[in-house]
Amino acid sequence: MLRTHTCGELTLKNKEQHVTLCGWVHKSRDLGGMTFIDLRDRYGITQLAFNMEVNKEICEQARTLGREYVLKVTGIVKERSNKNLKIPTGEIEIFVSNIEILNKSIIPPFTIEDNTDGGEELRMKYRYLDLRRNVVKQNLLLRHKVAIEIRNYLNHQSFIEIETPVLIKSTPEGARDFVVPSRMNPGEFYALPQSPQTFKQLLMIAGFDRYFQLVKCFRDEDLRADRQPEFTQIDCEMSFITQEDILNTFEGLAKHLFKIIKDIVFKEFLRISYADAMKYYGCDKPDIRFDMKFVELNEIVKNKGFKVFDDAELVIGICAKGCVEYSRKQLDELTEFVKKPQIGATGLVYLRYNTDGSIKSSVDKFYNQAELDKWIEQFKALPGDLILVLAGNKEKTQKALSELRLEMANRLGFRDPKVFAPLWVVDFPLLEWDEETNRFYAKHHPFTAPKPEDIPLIDKSPAEVRANAYDLVVNGVEIGGGSIRIFDKDLQNRMLHLLGFSEEDAQAQFGFLMNAFQYGAPPHGGIALGFDRLCALLGGSDSIRDYIAFPKNNAGRDVMIDSPAKISDVQLKELHITIHN
Amino acid sequence: MLRTHTCGELTLKNKEQHVTLCGWVHKSRDLGGMTFIDLRDRYGITQLAFNMEVNKEICEQARTLGREYVLKVTGIVKERSNKNLKIPTGEIEIFVSNIEILNKSIIPPFTIEDNTDGGEELRMKYRYLDLRRNVVKQNLLLRHKVAIEIRNYLNHQSFIEIETPVLIKSTPEGARDFVVPSRMNPGEFYALPQSPQTFKQLLMIAGFDRYFQLVKCFRDEDLRADRQPEFTQIDCEMSFITQEDILNTFEGLAKHLFKIIKDIVFKEFLRISYADAMKYYGCDKPDIRFDMKFVELNEIVKNKGFKVFDDAELVIGICAKGCVEYSRKQLDELTEFVKKPQIGATGLVYLRYNTDGSIKSSVDKFYNQAELDKWIEQFKALPGDLILVLAGNKEKTQKALSELRLEMANRLGFRDPKVFAPLWVVDFPLLEWDEETNRFYAKHHPFTAPKPEDIPLIDKSPAEVRANAYDLVVNGVEIGGGSIRIFDKDLQNRMLHLLGFSEEDAQAQFGFLMNAFQYGAPPHGGIALGFDRLCALLGGSDSIRDYIAFPKNNAGRDVMIDSPAKISDVQLKELHITIHN
Repeated sequence: MLRTHTCGELTLKNKEQHVTLCGWVHKSRDLGGMTFIDLRDRYGITQLAFNMEVNKEICEQARTLGREYVLKVTGIVKERSNKNLKIPTGEIEIFVSNIEILNKSIIPPFTIEDNTDGGEELRMKYRYLDLRRNVVKQNLLLRHKVAIEIRNYLNHQSFIEIETPVLIKSTPEGARDFVVPSRMNPGEFYALPQSPQTFKQLLMIAGFDRYFQLVKCFRDEDLRADRQPEFTQIDCEMSFITQEDILNTFEGLAKHLFKIIKDIVFKEFLRISYADAMKYYGCDKPDIRFDMKFVELNEIVKNKGFKVFDDAELVIGICAKGCVEYSRKQLDELTEFVKKPQIGATGLVYLRYNTDGSIKSSVDKFYNQAELDKWIEQFKALPGDLILVLAGNKEKTQKALSELRLEMANRLGFRDPKVFAPLWVVDFPLLEWDEETNRFYAKHHPFTAPKPEDIPLIDKSPAEVRANAYDLVVNGVEIGGGSIRIFDKDLQNRMLHLLGFSEEDAQAQFGFLMNAFQYGAPPHGGIALGFDRLCALLGGSDSIRDYIAFPKNNAGRDVMIDSPAKISDVQLKELHITIHN
Repeated sequence: MLRTHTCGELTLKNKEQHVTLCGWVHKSRDLGGMTFIDLRDRYGITQLAFNMEVNKEICEQARTLGREYVLKVTGIVKERSNKNLKIPTGEIEIFVSNIEILNKSIIPPFTIEDNTDGGEELRMKYRYLDLRRNVVKQNLLLRHKVAIEIRNYLNHQSFIEIETPVLIKSTPEGARDFVVPSRMNPGEFYALPQSPQTFKQLLMIAGFDRYFQLVKCFRDEDLRADRQPEFTQIDCEMSFITQEDILNTFEGLAKHLFKIIKDIVFKEFLRISYADAMKYYGCDKPDIRFDMKFVELNEIVKNKGFKVFDDAELVIGICAKGCVEYSRKQLDELTEFVKKPQIGATGLVYLRYNTDGSIKSSVDKFYNQAELDKWIEQFKALPGDLILVLAGNKEKTQKALSELRLEMANRLGFRDPKVFAPLWVVDFPLLEWDEETNRFYAKHHPFTAPKPEDIPLIDKSPAEVRANAYDLVVNGVEIGGGSIRIFDKDLQNRMLHLLGFSEEDAQAQFGFLMNAFQYGAPPHGGIALGFDRLCALLGGSDSIRDYIAFPKNNAGRDVMIDSPAKISDVQLKELHITIHN
């Protein structure tokens, strides 16, 4: 090693030791008689001290060193007079007797500081410099730690990690595949996996019992904010289990991670059905760091002459505790908020329950005191509360009120990233009707098992069939989801038929899996967790990009290496493809 | 869980317990009064017993169960009268009181046995059934265990695992890339990485100090036996180190794996230079489980009238201890062996050193007793030994004798897969001349650093420049290799120039790396180990395919899922590509 110690480990225990450190010039201060340099490596920062009186020559050398120069320095560990107790090495400094410049640096395009002056684009182009910043570096160290913990936890639970192939076959269901032309099989293509779903099911049929994999998956989507064309999943599958076993196993994993990484201990995670999630939160990934559940008013507000409510499929509201003092301006803002096109409500009704017990609502001319008392009762409101009500088409109104609920929570500071509220949403519907294509789609995927008790409904009212499918949700973010799988060939056939697959298509796409079902498939199920998202959550960030070493931008480009790029004509020829416009 | 125990854990300690097991019908024996079923899961096999007298009904049910049926059985653990001490559960059996058929199976296309009757092609098509066989299953369990051990070992050495991107950019150097057309950037392509080489160097520039990754890599080659288009590397890089540190670190890892997996303890690995490897073994990955080093005879055999030796650039031989009794027929076989086109020698000279001290050679008419005595001396041969000599062009003769050495070792049983002989081959040449294209290629890759003492040779005799490059070789197989990297922009430029890159090409291909070198690149180096190959070695197999869950065949096809395959016209259109012939 070129060094005896790292820049993060020397303390008063090492006083008077001769040491050699390597690292980057982080900061440099010339105080006339003394010069100080902060030397940085992955492990920390150590102060180097140079004294003009003691060693003029080296002090002058030190003054020539620029930011981000790479040094190897030798010296003696001394106790600092001016201690910095915020960092582990803050009680010592090195009296340097020798400097070797391992490499120089031109001036970086932005400062290597937590609060850098570099914009997003510049930092992405020079990602290797961005990664030097402590905040970014810590994200990747966290990611590594989380990965190690996940692997060891699952290993101890008898899961084995098995690598499934990356070069697989394109399937039309789901999102768009990235494809890879095969040179050896002209006109044919591999596809990159959107998930190892069928392979993990085959591993269960092969008898592996408990499988997991931290695995790169790929989706050729038009990228929205915070989506990446390649992302990492914690992919898992178990045999001879019920849904209960999967929930318990992965709740165990999640608790372990919260304990190890955040030192937070959870009791049992709340479980709510999809139906209740929609009813009380208007969304299948509710943020339950705060209550503010939906309350339905249909029964008590209709037929009182207020046309908006009379015509509405659903009248629902939330109670904002202690918000009675909201000003006219604030209420107007909320009204503007719900009327934004992406929220889609037509207006907002409010009711103030004043601290003196009086009631003031925006619909006073339609409802008398006694009627408004019923609202209060329904919401279990207390004096000082503000009730906000939306009305309209069921789905739209649920979605809009869900957004308003989050907006109110943001305003009230209820969404602290240091607070975590995990829950399971269970009993998802098996199918989803698509108006546009006039057919059912699998809500989760075509291999998800219906609840046994709902199987009789499959033919007469498919939309009502619930699945043994579940999502793990934390702070309003879906961390992962899974299901118990179909393991019977006939039921799988019926399901594919329901999804509009012809016999031939089913055979062409999933023939190998259907075939495998004939040779003793065990009952099985699994889950897939978004690893990037999980790391971001544990790190207290909204952005998965911060937790990926070399992310792509919203156009799917890696601006650092400038990819994708043109390839040579020779390559195109070998692959038997031509580019057209 | 559907079960209380697995099929691998019940022993006499569980006697008289009520248990529930799940698994597959492995074997079934009907002995008239009794029926026995071996129930199999990932963890083992447990014998189920059914007695016609005790419970006629369930015994008759048991007799209807076919091979590979999936069962859930409940019963009582009993001590066996007829014990099988070869398996952990061999002292007990289950008196079954209830059988639930979880799934049926049609008859598998081959037997689920270590010695199956299924041919390679059939087993690949039904890989999920092949994986049920104990020998194949154990391979994947070993692979998982090796991966966990590697990760924890490196983690404890402060290495952090960082995922580098899979969708990167095509580079013309090296093997052919697989490419991925970009839908969002028409006419442009991503490439799949042949290794994360440039990214791990950027991670060193970013200051991560110690990086590793178990990572899928891709190479679009015409597949030879036992090559896969996608394979897994243990990819590593370290900063502020010398070659010595890398060798010690990864020798430590290798020793750890041999200890944990094979219970073999190694002292220091042998290290030999590339030059010596070629001189003594004629190959850069010598199998040193046995000695049989090359001995050069040029000095003592020339100018005695034997034209073959006189015209030869190199006359070298090996001494096969105690093989003097090789028959004429055996010697003819060896001659045929070396004359095969892929070996390429023109003939074989032998010398028998008989146990009575007399000497008999195939070139007696050219060499007298005194001259042949010098051969004996040169080889340090003992009575009873057989000397085998080849002559000709240096490179070809080394290669041919290397093959003959391995052939003799095979015949003599010197290549026991349970014996392991690791070594480091160091000081590889930096460059390799290619006759066909009339230019130098990087022996390792363009980022490898020359030995500092050889830098002056770069311009006048590039072929003599040695690199700080090294391979880890075990039993004649290259397990991995690496190098100390160039970290200076000017030297890297010089190197690319030597490799025939124009300024423009260098900038277009590696501009981002060259650019990064300007911002304080630390001294660094690394290694990449073939994970599939390492697992095969530890498992005692020659074939990496046995250690990959879903391998592709020699045509790059996955015959199970039938990939690659055609994609739809819609997909082609979206990707702006057309297929031509």
